[in-house]
Amino acid sequence: MLGAGWWARGRGFWRLLQPLEPRFGAGGRSRLPLRQHAAQGSCRPAEIGLQPRRDKYGGLSVSLSQLRSPESLGEATFQRWLQDSVRQWKAEGHIAVWLHVPILQSRFIAVAAEQGFTFHHAESHSATLTLWLAEGCSRLPIYATHQLGVAGAVLDVHTGKVLVVQDRNKTTNAWKFPGGLSEPGEDIGNTATREVFEETGIKSEFKALLSIRQQHRHPGAFGKSDLYIICRLEPSSFSISFCQQECLRCEWMDLTELAKTKEATPITSNIARLLLYGYREGFDKIDITMREFPAVYTGLFYKLYHRQLPEDWRNTTNLQ
Amino acid sequence: MLGAGWWARGRGFWRLLQPLEPRFGAGGRSRLPLRQHAAQGSCRPAEIGLQPRRDKYGGLSVSLSQLRSPESLGEATFQRWLQDSVRQWKAEGHIAVWLHVPILQSRFIAVAAEQGFTFHHAESHSATLTLWLAEGCSRLPIYATHQLGVAGAVLDVHTGKVLVVQDRNKTTNAWKFPGGLSEPGEDIGNTATREVFEETGIKSEFKALLSIRQQHRHPGAFGKSDLYIICRLEPSSFSISFCQQECLRCEWMDLTELAKTKEATPITSNIARLLLYGYREGFDKIDITMREFPAVYTGLFYKLYHRQLPEDWRNTTNLQ
Repeated sequence: MLGAGWWARGRGFWRLLQPLEPRFGAGGRSRLPLRQHAAQGSCRPAEIGLQPRRDKYGGLSVSLSQLRSPESLGEATFQRWLQDSVRQWKAEGHIAVWLHVPILQSRFIAVAAEQGFTFHHAESHSATLTLWLAEGCSRLPIYATHQLGVAGAVLDVHTGKVLVVQDRNKTTNAWKFPGGLSEPGEDIGNTATREVFEETGIKSEFKALLSIRQQHRHPGAFGKSDLYIICRLEPSSFSISFCQQECLRCEWMDLTELAKTKEATPITSNIARLLLYGYREGFDKIDITMREFPAVYTGLFYKLYHRQLPEDWRNTTNLQ
Repeated sequence: MLGAGWWARGRGFWRLLQPLEPRFGAGGRSRLPLRQHAAQGSCRPAEIGLQPRRDKYGGLSVSLSQLRSPESLGEATFQRWLQDSVRQWKAEGHIAVWLHVPILQSRFIAVAAEQGFTFHHAESHSATLTLWLAEGCSRLPIYATHQLGVAGAVLDVHTGKVLVVQDRNKTTNAWKFPGGLSEPGEDIGNTATREVFEETGIKSEFKALLSIRQQHRHPGAFGKSDLYIICRLEPSSFSISFCQQECLRCEWMDLTELAKTKEATPITSNIARLLLYGYREGFDKIDITMREFPAVYTGLFYKLYHRQLPEDWRNTTNLQ
């Protein structure tokens, strides 16, 4: 996890983790395996079957899933091992420890917490705790900070009508674009078309991004930040069959009417006006278009969204 | 947390949580407090000092921080209470339970896990677990899925030069725009200017977004998704004093040269060409500009980014 090349791309978090590395020698790493280090100290941690792995940033990673018979390891034994180990790791100049705990071994979390470990993140059946060993505040990278919501503005260019819904559960029923939260690993455009289909029964195709909104401390995001993207979509089906559990109403509404009405959420009104401008003056005026590129680190493809660049500007040989 | 109004805005996750509510009566909620419900059952959970709170989506929330003397609560007692409670909650038609556990009470996490609870998220000194009680797969909203990285393309329009850096820790030292991860609650433009200053010593001002990239299963994001935004910035200082720990080199480079060179990361080359196009033909061709609006739910302001809309299009009265 921490050995991945990403941080080395200078996204700004690991920059301060470097100074301690020279302690381990010219290569930035110790040439001795950990146990040999331990044997040199006066307070060698008892062997309990956990072998820390180093990362290239001066940190260590310990996974309790390594325990062959975790049920036979007492909290007191683990407490002594962790206390001795932390003392040793600090002496060796390691700057941080990552502790991975399977949920069924969670009784060890409180033990670690008593020694200063805190939760970094947890999901499903595993928690990851950290302890900063170096001077000053922790400079470890934080976990995901944003949820991503995506809505679709589906415009039928032949009729000038746009697909809007009213929520069933809202006190004031304002018109809005159908949308929802992005699922893990889902591309922005796919969230838009999936949510539009689930809510309205309309099939559509992604054309471009229209807007990005950022909100912080969002109550619906468990206090995290919220990014909300509205996409321009083109419909490939037209017969509405809306989700009765979520929507009170669903209509193809004249775009000019949506841009004017007060019965719309503020962001819907704003984007309706933007969309109307694009509809009348050309979508190239409003579109943030998408291109796909191979990703160096994951072997997957990534999508890059920006203003359309004329073809001759994409070709470097033409630049003077 | 779950009572917040956000979900009612139809972002698509709570839609399927509604059908069970009528069990509680016309108002969608039970009119009896939980303990009275419990007294009617044959298997009333023992009183251990935990009082579940209901949310309006048919779920319950239990916080172990309510325990007045958690050290005196045994795991076996908690196990029986949770087992009996889960049975009762299911019988009452609740669809899900949220269990909030302070890190020092983590010994109860494994107990809950044995009854099917899993981690929803954890941070710092607290973990939140969930158990889905209704039929089918859990339809609870997921936690933050994206980290956000922001870089700044600082262009000095008087010289046509742009600020670029080379990472100290990268094998091939390709030019790139300075940037880093967004801190919690930080606006996109502020991340860009802060990171540029920290890496290069250059002060700058946010002008517009230029591009958005989405990558999934990112090794540097603990397997989560990564959003990476490049902003157009204008410098207000010009004397470079770069971070030696992070950067190997830092320069004001001619934008045309950056757009042509092969010694740049692919995304840097692409955005350099886009920026050059804007520099020569007008930034209005490439900018995704920002406006600020009051946020309904948080009392804060949010920032909305989209293509600049001519003034007369913003005024609804002009629309016909």
